Amino acid sequence: MAFTLSRLAASTAVAVGLLAAGPAAAYDELVEKQVFDMPEYTTAGGETIAPVKVGWEAYGTLNEAKDNAILITHFFSGTGHAAGKYAADDAAPGYWDSIIGPGKPIDTDRYYVISSDTLVNLNTGDPNVTTTGPASINPETGEPWGMDFPVVTIRDFVNVQKALVESLGIERLHAVMGASMGSLQAYEWASAYPDMVERVIPVIGSGASDAYLIGWLNAWAAPIRLDPNWQGGDYYGGTPPTAGLAEALKLVTLQANHWEWADDTFGRAWADASADPARSMEAQYQVEAVLDQVAAARAAKSDANHFLYLVKANQTFLTGHGGSLADGLAAIEAPALVIHAPEDLIFFPEKVRETATLIGADGTPVDIVELQGTRGHLDGVIGIAQAGEAIRAFLAEKVSGTAPD
Amino acid sequence: MAFTLSRLAASTAVAVGLLAAGPAAAYDELVEKQVFDMPEYTTAGGETIAPVKVGWEAYGTLNEAKDNAILITHFFSGTGHAAGKYAADDAAPGYWDSIIGPGKPIDTDRYYVISSDTLVNLNTGDPNVTTTGPASINPETGEPWGMDFPVVTIRDFVNVQKALVESLGIERLHAVMGASMGSLQAYEWASAYPDMVERVIPVIGSGASDAYLIGWLNAWAAPIRLDPNWQGGDYYGGTPPTAGLAEALKLVTLQANHWEWADDTFGRAWADASADPARSMEAQYQVEAVLDQVAAARAAKSDANHFLYLVKANQTFLTGHGGSLADGLAAIEAPALVIHAPEDLIFFPEKVRETATLIGADGTPVDIVELQGTRGHLDGVIGIAQAGEAIRAFLAEKVSGTAPD
Repeated sequence: MAFTLSRLAASTAVAVGLLAAGPAAAYDELVEKQVFDMPEYTTAGGETIAPVKVGWEAYGTLNEAKDNAILITHFFSGTGHAAGKYAADDAAPGYWDSIIGPGKPIDTDRYYVISSDTLVNLNTGDPNVTTTGPASINPETGEPWGMDFPVVTIRDFVNVQKALVESLGIERLHAVMGASMGSLQAYEWASAYPDMVERVIPVIGSGASDAYLIGWLNAWAAPIRLDPNWQGGDYYGGTPPTAGLAEALKLVTLQANHWEWADDTFGRAWADASADPARSMEAQYQVEAVLDQVAAARAAKSDANHFLYLVKANQTFLTGHGGSLADGLAAIEAPALVIHAPEDLIFFPEKVRETATLIGADGTPVDIVELQGTRGHLDGVIGIAQAGEAIRAFLAEKVSGTAPD
Repeated sequence: MAFTLSRLAASTAVAVGLLAAGPAAAYDELVEKQVFDMPEYTTAGGETIAPVKVGWEAYGTLNEAKDNAILITHFFSGTGHAAGKYAADDAAPGYWDSIIGPGKPIDTDRYYVISSDTLVNLNTGDPNVTTTGPASINPETGEPWGMDFPVVTIRDFVNVQKALVESLGIERLHAVMGASMGSLQAYEWASAYPDMVERVIPVIGSGASDAYLIGWLNAWAAPIRLDPNWQGGDYYGGTPPTAGLAEALKLVTLQANHWEWADDTFGRAWADASADPARSMEAQYQVEAVLDQVAAARAAKSDANHFLYLVKANQTFLTGHGGSLADGLAAIEAPALVIHAPEDLIFFPEKVRETATLIGADGTPVDIVELQGTRGHLDGVIGIAQAGEAIRAFLAEKVSGTAPD
């Protein structure tokens, strides 16, 4: 297994605007996306993908002992862009910039924070994303894989990340942390490779996809398969199923949110003050029009087949990749800081608490933090700063068997 | 406004099997679906539909004073079949048979219980359903209305029911009760026609569709519009968009249920014990296969355009049909028994409680009953018997301004 790495560009060109953000400034070096390249990768299901390339980025400096690395794993529709900006004039920094940076809870003056794009990442149209999936060229045919791409699982996402961190000479991670699908990767990391994970911080996720979520994921995928442009996944070079993908993404947006947010944001306002939705089948409420606009914008830079493979990866998730949930979670030895949103409509609080209980059943330390907010599941992304000091303290705690910092 | 009525068939042919149901036997007369026919109806939006026909059925006997009538209004995917059986060998009785019948909380020895199919009823393929909607012939063209059918609202559903009950010589209803979309009709009845409604029993619903539900209803409709067979609603005589309708119905099934039910029923079982879902994009979990089967069966007897019109009717719902929610609910003078399920993922409990508070703000008596269960929203249909004695007592209470029973 070989790989190629390029170095983090340590730009000091910091926009003045970023410094105006307050005492905990945004990550103050521009971020450069790198590519990790594996000539070939064998899936947990025994199939070969050659080559595999994924994007990754890092914030902070890896120390000489290479024991200060924290891995951040991303959510379903996310990317490896967890903090900082690629260019000073980027509209927004990475999604968890509120907790990652110099002096912040995940302190880049102290830790080396790595974040990679997963396999089958949704955002194939994002120039800062590198991923391998159905839209990638299968060298054997010279054509995109399409639905011939092997099924990949959360274990596969983790295995590729493991190869990445090992390529950097890192043998143990100070912590693995991720939100939603990122939390599934965090659970899997800690269960599959307990010797490599010192601490785990799963956010808004539980230890398995339950039947209800499996059913919902099926429903999320359905609009893509209904779109006549999908063509069994063989749309590359033609017209992609953008309308179906947009409706799939709309379902994700809705389920990841909460009625309180929708109420506060839209109420029952009409999309067009002159077009009463009660008078025409086409006239919409504002919430409908905005959902359509957001979904269309996201669909334009995303790949529909990648969405289907992400659905499958999430449906098949069970910590430990086989066996029982209890066994998979018992294999976790790292202390866990489980962060969740009680109003979450994707990973329900009862399931998160059950997961925490199963991790702790054999004495593994587990703490739970509840996030408040009006965004449901998304409070774990948008509202993470609430847990900032809990995260800072958890990362600073000594873990038995590790050398003092 | 003219109308045609046929009489309830009072069959005494009761299957022995029905009598075995226990002391509170199933409604023990066979039910006959009737048709209420209006040569023309003008919608709340000012458009004319001619003719309008809706099915209706009744249980019990209308007394001479015609003051013992209770109207039951049905849910989104439901019909007027609330109790009893059409034939002794029907697989199941109407959906609320557990509370409607001789000696039951809605006692057909005492009350005359009416239940009608709404406009744009979904179940156009059910021989016991009569409705008027896009699938009906527009006499002006001799073709189905399709998407030229006027927008109809919950107020229109109520107005057609009002014409039906007035055709029976009924000037006041002892109560109006309905679940989900049926509760919206109940709120609207009590607000629009306070002189005609003595008591109101809204079940699993709130006084308006909020932004989140409006967005979800939009997403429910999307698979139909994506199905290439939909053809802008002009599919009559051709191939209907059954696949899209099935996916739409799957969304309803999921959202009307709850993770606890899915967990208990399916867990993470595979659809085919020899086909690991982690090894193939086509291999499914059991929950997926069952959702597909149920949705396909329902879609085969339903009409896709009717689904779209039901979505619109629910999105536009605001008690009082215009103005503020507070004003619409303040117009309700009837005592209210508000029944809901705290685990409901369609009409959230906070919204139901807000509705009850607004009804009661001007002194109107309001009681709240919470249903327990594992079905979320559907606990209001499946678990209604829990509220049986509360309903019985509420119906027996004297209401100021009414004569003693």
